[in-house]
Amino acid sequence: MIKTGIIGATGYAGSELVRILASHPNVKITTITSQSYKGKNYGEIYENFRHIEKVCEEENIEEMAEKCDVIFLALPHGVASGKVTKEILDKTKIIDLGADFRLQDAKVYEKWYKTPHNALDILPEAVYGLCEINREKIKGKRIIANPGCYTTCSILSLYPLVKEKMIDLKTIIIDAKSGVTGAGRGISLGTHYDEVNESIKAYKIASHRHTPEIEEQLSYASGEDIVLSFTPHLTPMNRGILATCYASLNNSYSYSDIKSAYNKYYKDEYFIRLTKEGIFPETKWVKGSNFCDIGFVIDERTNRIIVTGAIDNLYKGAAGQAVQNMNILFDIDEKTGIDCPAIFPV
Amino acid sequence: MIKTGIIGATGYAGSELVRILASHPNVKITTITSQSYKGKNYGEIYENFRHIEKVCEEENIEEMAEKCDVIFLALPHGVASGKVTKEILDKTKIIDLGADFRLQDAKVYEKWYKTPHNALDILPEAVYGLCEINREKIKGKRIIANPGCYTTCSILSLYPLVKEKMIDLKTIIIDAKSGVTGAGRGISLGTHYDEVNESIKAYKIASHRHTPEIEEQLSYASGEDIVLSFTPHLTPMNRGILATCYASLNNSYSYSDIKSAYNKYYKDEYFIRLTKEGIFPETKWVKGSNFCDIGFVIDERTNRIIVTGAIDNLYKGAAGQAVQNMNILFDIDEKTGIDCPAIFPV
Amino acid sequence: MIKTGIIGATGYAGSELVRILASHPNVKITTITSQSYKGKNYGEIYENFRHIEKVCEEENIEEMAEKCDVIFLALPHGVASGKVTKEILDKTKIIDLGADFRLQDAKVYEKWYKTPHNALDILPEAVYGLCEINREKIKGKRIIANPGCYTTCSILSLYPLVKEKMIDLKTIIIDAKSGVTGAGRGISLGTHYDEVNESIKAYKIASHRHTPEIEEQLSYASGEDIVLSFTPHLTPMNRGILATCYASLNNSYSYSDIKSAYNKYYKDEYFIRLTKEGIFPETKWVKGSNFCDIGFVIDERTNRIIVTGAIDNLYKGAAGQAVQNMNILFDIDEKTGIDCPAIFPV
Amino acid sequence: MIKTGIIGATGYAGSELVRILASHPNVKITTITSQSYKGKNYGEIYENFRHIEKVCEEENIEEMAEKCDVIFLALPHGVASGKVTKEILDKTKIIDLGADFRLQDAKVYEKWYKTPHNALDILPEAVYGLCEINREKIKGKRIIANPGCYTTCSILSLYPLVKEKMIDLKTIIIDAKSGVTGAGRGISLGTHYDEVNESIKAYKIASHRHTPEIEEQLSYASGEDIVLSFTPHLTPMNRGILATCYASLNNSYSYSDIKSAYNKYYKDEYFIRLTKEGIFPETKWVKGSNFCDIGFVIDERTNRIIVTGAIDNLYKGAAGQAVQNMNILFDIDEKTGIDCPAIFPV
Repeated sequence: MIKTGIIGATGYAGSELVRILASHPNVKITTITSQSYKGKNYGEIYENFRHIEKVCEEENIEEMAEKCDVIFLALPHGVASGKVTKEILDKTKIIDLGADFRLQDAKVYEKWYKTPHNALDILPEAVYGLCEINREKIKGKRIIANPGCYTTCSILSLYPLVKEKMIDLKTIIIDAKSGVTGAGRGISLGTHYDEVNESIKAYKIASHRHTPEIEEQLSYASGEDIVLSFTPHLTPMNRGILATCYASLNNSYSYSDIKSAYNKYYKDEYFIRLTKEGIFPETKWVKGSNFCDIGFVIDERTNRIIVTGAIDNLYKGAAGQAVQNMNILFDIDEKTGIDCPAIFPV
Repeated sequence: MIKTGIIGATGYAGSELVRILASHPNVKITTITSQSYKGKNYGEIYENFRHIEKVCEEENIEEMAEKCDVIFLALPHGVASGKVTKEILDKTKIIDLGADFRLQDAKVYEKWYKTPHNALDILPEAVYGLCEINREKIKGKRIIANPGCYTTCSILSLYPLVKEKMIDLKTIIIDAKSGVTGAGRGISLGTHYDEVNESIKAYKIASHRHTPEIEEQLSYASGEDIVLSFTPHLTPMNRGILATCYASLNNSYSYSDIKSAYNKYYKDEYFIRLTKEGIFPETKWVKGSNFCDIGFVIDERTNRIIVTGAIDNLYKGAAGQAVQNMNILFDIDEKTGIDCPAIFPV
Repeated sequence: MIKTGIIGATGYAGSELVRILASHPNVKITTITSQSYKGKNYGEIYENFRHIEKVCEEENIEEMAEKCDVIFLALPHGVASGKVTKEILDKTKIIDLGADFRLQDAKVYEKWYKTPHNALDILPEAVYGLCEINREKIKGKRIIANPGCYTTCSILSLYPLVKEKMIDLKTIIIDAKSGVTGAGRGISLGTHYDEVNESIKAYKIASHRHTPEIEEQLSYASGEDIVLSFTPHLTPMNRGILATCYASLNNSYSYSDIKSAYNKYYKDEYFIRLTKEGIFPETKWVKGSNFCDIGFVIDERTNRIIVTGAIDNLYKGAAGQAVQNMNILFDIDEKTGIDCPAIFPV
Repeated sequence: MIKTGIIGATGYAGSELVRILASHPNVKITTITSQSYKGKNYGEIYENFRHIEKVCEEENIEEMAEKCDVIFLALPHGVASGKVTKEILDKTKIIDLGADFRLQDAKVYEKWYKTPHNALDILPEAVYGLCEINREKIKGKRIIANPGCYTTCSILSLYPLVKEKMIDLKTIIIDAKSGVTGAGRGISLGTHYDEVNESIKAYKIASHRHTPEIEEQLSYASGEDIVLSFTPHLTPMNRGILATCYASLNNSYSYSDIKSAYNKYYKDEYFIRLTKEGIFPETKWVKGSNFCDIGFVIDERTNRIIVTGAIDNLYKGAAGQAVQNMNILFDIDEKTGIDCPAIFPV
């Protein structure tokens, strides 16, 4: 059994991690911690766990490193990088659901997060845990940067086109729509029920921190520096991300040309499902699952491709992919514990 | 492996059944049928199953009875009772998610459903599959009437009080609120998005067909004929039932008196969770799970008890309980395949 | 033109009041105040007013009393009663949307609100502003206690039955469902979008402060002391209240007997609409309006009546009725400025 | 009083028209017609009108033309063009909420609507009723093509940039999100509550019929043929459209350069509100109103502009703008009857 610890278990991503790990056949949850709720029974914080007994402890990463084979971090940016040290990594593996180890270029990190990076010594060792793309790099590593939710959906949607140089890299636009869980459990007027319900808005236009993460990974894929437009939207629903991606095609490709490119990279990827021609992804079909659904249309009038990708932001976009990374790290079947279809209607 | 068939697999309850059975470790789904979608791949009807291949067949219950250890029926009332015969029951077990075998009193059935009963010869053999109450009667049977959604929630909420004669049986009122999946997948103006969203209404006041079902079962429990008021409400959410139950207390009971009564019947029931004093059930804490959460308040000013119970109408109120019945029938651990906490937030 | 002031203009009820008064043909809004947003332009707080200029001032009720013909108070309980004095009432009229002047029995106030009453000298002068019932008492008064939202809906639904002594007063149960705006604009985990959306719960069972308000008014109507059960529910929608009311009938009344009772009191009431037999109120049909829709069913099996009433909690349940009270006080057509049908679908 | 008739009064746009016209001070509704509900009282179809008596008649446009000063048509495409004749236009004015007279290029109409145009003789006379742009052309005309919902929002968002040639016309992408009322009141699985709720999807990618309408109008503005990408999305809310528009800037414009361009065209437009820098439109701030809110961001990294525009699809996107057109045609204050802020929260 893989002994796991979760630091920051009481946010939405942490809670989804608890839910998934609690039924994972190869896992024992050793320790869960919470700054806000230490000493409190988990079933009083998340009453869906009313039937189990598990107390939130005060965080002590050194102690946890002794007891756990892997520690998941679900913390605000800047915090994880202050906790993880080489000594910790000598004792346990780290899967960080936050942003601190996602960007290899620390200058970019500092520019977008407006804070110095706290763990420059460890950063080079971190692998960007987008499983379908970086599986081989993940194996055997000690620290994995679990990708952001928007990022996962955006990169998976565009990767084959970028890798195969089928699109003009200067024309990429990603218009993304997220459910409200993406904003976390912290209260604010912006997430007050009546302010969100029955309305949609764009926010952080051209300034969302997932932008450089998408750019860095797609730049690796293309071998060229990519600068793109990313616009997130707050959508009145709990879960789900839909990324609508636009780019000019470099050639007059047919539907099957593009399809072949996607198949080249994804045909053996269990968690990526291409929709049939004329069928577009909907977030409901991936909710509560680790799947990423991708569909595309070639607009002959403009010679653009429009790709839509859908994931569950808390599952494939956070906790599910974190467990997928764990499965890879511990060399067990990658689907273990996360192989469920969306629950629908829910 | 238990070979299972599902007749009527493309309604919401049928679909939830497919989802649960597909990941049940002891089950193989042999045949699924659909009148509306025969010949169509299930993943095109419910795209959350996009990654699997399974074709909906035309229904032939005789053939299925040869191949299946158990057949689930998810059909409109009046249809199941026309299909099940003694010959079928000699070959396979039946778990009927519809209404046809729930009422032992055929006259009551005919009065509320305004149609003669088609299987009077089989009716006496059918057991009302409310697992926590009728577990012993279910074992070894051939045909189980899986309870209605409102019914499951209402009976479980009131059973200990009725059984222990703590309430005045003439004063029972159940005010129930259901998500829209309770109305099924059939389209109508009444379930058109913009007509349901952001509004609540009562419907079928004093005339909903789950009323006699609740009355019959509670009458068995009390040994007296119970007539009660039941009011269903359509609530703007996909899933969940909350039953708010009122009754006058026969005595000035304390909180712990009542709690003892509930514990007497439920303390070993895994799927029934009593909330702590002052905490009331919410449908979100049971969504996507087989749990029934129950809480109560004693209103000293009126000497009434108010009990609230919450279930997921498609899970404990339909498919999950059907699988629980299957587990009992096939003598495997009752929790197998249905032991998951609610998914939250979803 | 009636010069009006609003103290507490930036809560949801205050904002609805601003919206209604801004288009009232006989009204000029003189002053609006806000504790949280003083000095800020109203169109930055509520961006639906982006096109108008109106700054929130610091509250000074004495100054406002000089300038305003009427002041609306939309304040937390205990605050209004600390502000209103006889001197204020000599200069202006007060319509209080809060709870402080609703209960004539100060002991009951103190018991339910757990605080002494701050204005016992003024309390006897206050009139309970349920317009359809107390219209004649309202005329010419100086201080009106605008009824609570649940209260308005509950009393209007039951008044004719109580007044005509058609129901057993000891059997009244009100099961009420409210949209989330009822909880106001103050942020909390309980009103965080993902915690409310897609779920329903009862809260403050047998302990909600609108209970004594309903009881006091219905006791006046019947001439007897009424004690009843009231259960509020939080419903996943922005606006609307549905009250489902139960009581045992004192006789075997026919549908038309009951209908006659309602007509006796309401046939000339523009804002009360009885639904046709078999049609039940839905909150969507009153949203954004001052109407109260009422329907009922006689359950012959139990000899109970079930009455459902629907209002918009922010309109008829707060700001709209406050304006209706103002219209009565200033002797203009009661419908002025509030005569609009529900906006649907919205 | 302007005598008005409405043909197709029982769809959502027709119903919103009834609601607005019923309280318009210069209007008398003479006749309303409905194919589905002829002979039925309007208050039984839309119960928010429960308090008024108005029967839906069978449509007879010739008779209506005699009695009405203006007839609004809210009909499926292809139907209006079969009804309107020169004889009708000699007797009354027509404001058509459908698509038939929006495209001046009949070939484009036939290509996108896959049907011949039925009124080629009248088409040249029709004016595209986007009031803020075509006000002067509308005056004195006999037939107005009321713009589509997506179209109104998209054109108003981009018009100044196109007119002032500040953007590269080949790079325009419009990613639009609509509430479900955009799909009308006709029932289908795609608008069944549980299929829409809590999910978002793109649909008709690169093939939605509002595309040529946007292109034609923007081409008029620019004097060049514009081909653009338009992607509509179905958003889980009743009302509202948000259009997120992307284009490459022709120069390195500052925020105030762009703002000046918008001000040049819109500073005196009451119904267009530019948001302050850093504030982005949200559909909730325009719901139930005729306003169009517009905000923009210059993305210096990509030299793109991102403009977001928000309207209420049933109001400014349909019925409200139709009334605005009527006001212009009949030379009364353009705001009459449609000057209300959004109702919030609703």
